[in-house]
Amino acid sequence: MSLLITGGLGFLGLQTASALLRRGVVWSPLFKQPVSIKKITLFDIPAAISAGAASVPKELREDPRVAIKTGDLGEEGIAAELIDDDDLSIVHLASMVSGDTEADPDRGWRVNVEGQRALLEAVKASAPGARFLFTSSTATLGPVPEGRIADDSTKLLPGNTYGFHKAVCELMINDYARRGWVDARGLRLPVIVVRPGAPNAALTGAWSTVVRDPLKGLDVTIPIPLDARLPVASYQTVVGSVAAMLNEVDGRALGADRTLMLPSLSLSVAEMHAAAQSFAARHGLPIGTVTSREQEVATRIVRGMGSRADGARAVSAGLPRDESADSIVAAYAADYVLPKLQTSSTS
Amino acid sequence: MSLLITGGLGFLGLQTASALLRRGVVWSPLFKQPVSIKKITLFDIPAAISAGAASVPKELREDPRVAIKTGDLGEEGIAAELIDDDDLSIVHLASMVSGDTEADPDRGWRVNVEGQRALLEAVKASAPGARFLFTSSTATLGPVPEGRIADDSTKLLPGNTYGFHKAVCELMINDYARRGWVDARGLRLPVIVVRPGAPNAALTGAWSTVVRDPLKGLDVTIPIPLDARLPVASYQTVVGSVAAMLNEVDGRALGADRTLMLPSLSLSVAEMHAAAQSFAARHGLPIGTVTSREQEVATRIVRGMGSRADGARAVSAGLPRDESADSIVAAYAADYVLPKLQTSSTS
Repeated sequence: MSLLITGGLGFLGLQTASALLRRGVVWSPLFKQPVSIKKITLFDIPAAISAGAASVPKELREDPRVAIKTGDLGEEGIAAELIDDDDLSIVHLASMVSGDTEADPDRGWRVNVEGQRALLEAVKASAPGARFLFTSSTATLGPVPEGRIADDSTKLLPGNTYGFHKAVCELMINDYARRGWVDARGLRLPVIVVRPGAPNAALTGAWSTVVRDPLKGLDVTIPIPLDARLPVASYQTVVGSVAAMLNEVDGRALGADRTLMLPSLSLSVAEMHAAAQSFAARHGLPIGTVTSREQEVATRIVRGMGSRADGARAVSAGLPRDESADSIVAAYAADYVLPKLQTSSTS
Repeated sequence: MSLLITGGLGFLGLQTASALLRRGVVWSPLFKQPVSIKKITLFDIPAAISAGAASVPKELREDPRVAIKTGDLGEEGIAAELIDDDDLSIVHLASMVSGDTEADPDRGWRVNVEGQRALLEAVKASAPGARFLFTSSTATLGPVPEGRIADDSTKLLPGNTYGFHKAVCELMINDYARRGWVDARGLRLPVIVVRPGAPNAALTGAWSTVVRDPLKGLDVTIPIPLDARLPVASYQTVVGSVAAMLNEVDGRALGADRTLMLPSLSLSVAEMHAAAQSFAARHGLPIGTVTSREQEVATRIVRGMGSRADGARAVSAGLPRDESADSIVAAYAADYVLPKLQTSSTS
């Protein structure tokens, strides 16, 4: 079977591709069970090649099953070209992020909403019944009143345009699934931490920055308050959830509401940094400082997202979860910090 | 100021135009108070002219303030042409109905979703801050579990494509309002009864048919079960609510969720018909019978809508409500049945 990952050259796309290739199998709509992956297409915008090429891991670059394609999902015909196998699964990660969408809502509509619609139409036409995993966001929830915790029954009242688009996409996959056109399912992702490399335009990047950069010994300044609190999950947990949603979760069991809120921890920027400090102390590493220089728009957008989310339905469905800020930092460090220390100590 | 009514040649559009012209004033974004209406544009698809021309009331046809324009909202440039005054209000009723949208979801998306988006973009560009009233539907709610009543905090999980499109439009007006581009507000309409004239493709037409046709002495057959139950409101209440939303409700008071669920009564087809029987008995009129010959798709769609809805937030905002099935039938009869009886008894 084939696997298509849109936004495939982004950090999460590459992590997902690596994890699924290690696993080797993904659920096949033709054989109704997990079968060997013959091809993974990583689709992204042309700009992602120059931005991401350096970060495409060697094991992906050298794997003959991996193909890279670029284009604009909003363009006529592109989606149809991508659905080139009637035995495939799709992980649809491609999206304009929150800051860019707020700045250019028209382009956001075209990429985030019309892009998904084109893809679903292509699946409906050429690979009906294929599993289609859409990654939504807790930005769909909007601000949740103090003392209440959002769960899968919470009405979606997004506080930014990005959340509006993601909420539309959730409604869209419900309708395509209800009509039996696509075996669509969604994961409502919290802030994903700890992202390595350079920050993207997501305002939620601060939750990664305050771990990543100080652990490199750098002092950082962030545009939002230190007590800003959002639901977060490690990329390891997210990738594990994507794999479970593709292989193990029965779409019919999801009912009319096909998007599960991913289990998450409600953590402030300050708490993420504290976990990094504690990690640094345990390993005798230097640690940079974090300063907040609040920007009004950034602060308003971040405050307009829900700060807590209850992923009970996802837990029942068997999806994994993180333990603590410390476990999240440790998992990141195992991938990106400790290997470098070993390299430098052996060199 | 000018008033634009899309779907203006439909039953509700004509009723709204008549009611607002009788009132004479509508809120002006320029003067920040209700001022005289200089022009009402009734916009509709070309087919509505032939279908609706006969039903355009004489007082509208002869009123020099009334202009009729036709076109396709999905077509490039049409929306911009319609927003031809920086001092205007918009009542956006145009929509493909439930049966048509289920049958042709692509056209539904273009008309229901992209049509509203084009209109909002035109308002944003040429009349920023104008009041824009969108009519949503209780079809956005989907089936509500037995024993629970949907209200404005209920998550939207529509059970048909029409409800999906209306839910997207609700999210859309929230975003345009949040950004201050349009003073958008929405009314989530229940089934509107009693519609005179020929039925349209809405599956909810049965709630009107079982009153209207038997009161003409006709026996009718409907495609859904007699115990099918939906939230309903009289067109008189809906028109009163539209006028209140345009003139009296402060958009800021609506908060992040700009759509109010209209107050409604949960009535079955059988209860509507019983009220017609009772009215006929009181006035010594003949009354036709109602037979159900259930069609599977129609029944499934109607069962997939919420059967009850709580309009408490709208009541707080001062919107009107109906008393009973009997009061709804009496109000319809006062407009369409009793005048004819008088005419025939005097002739």
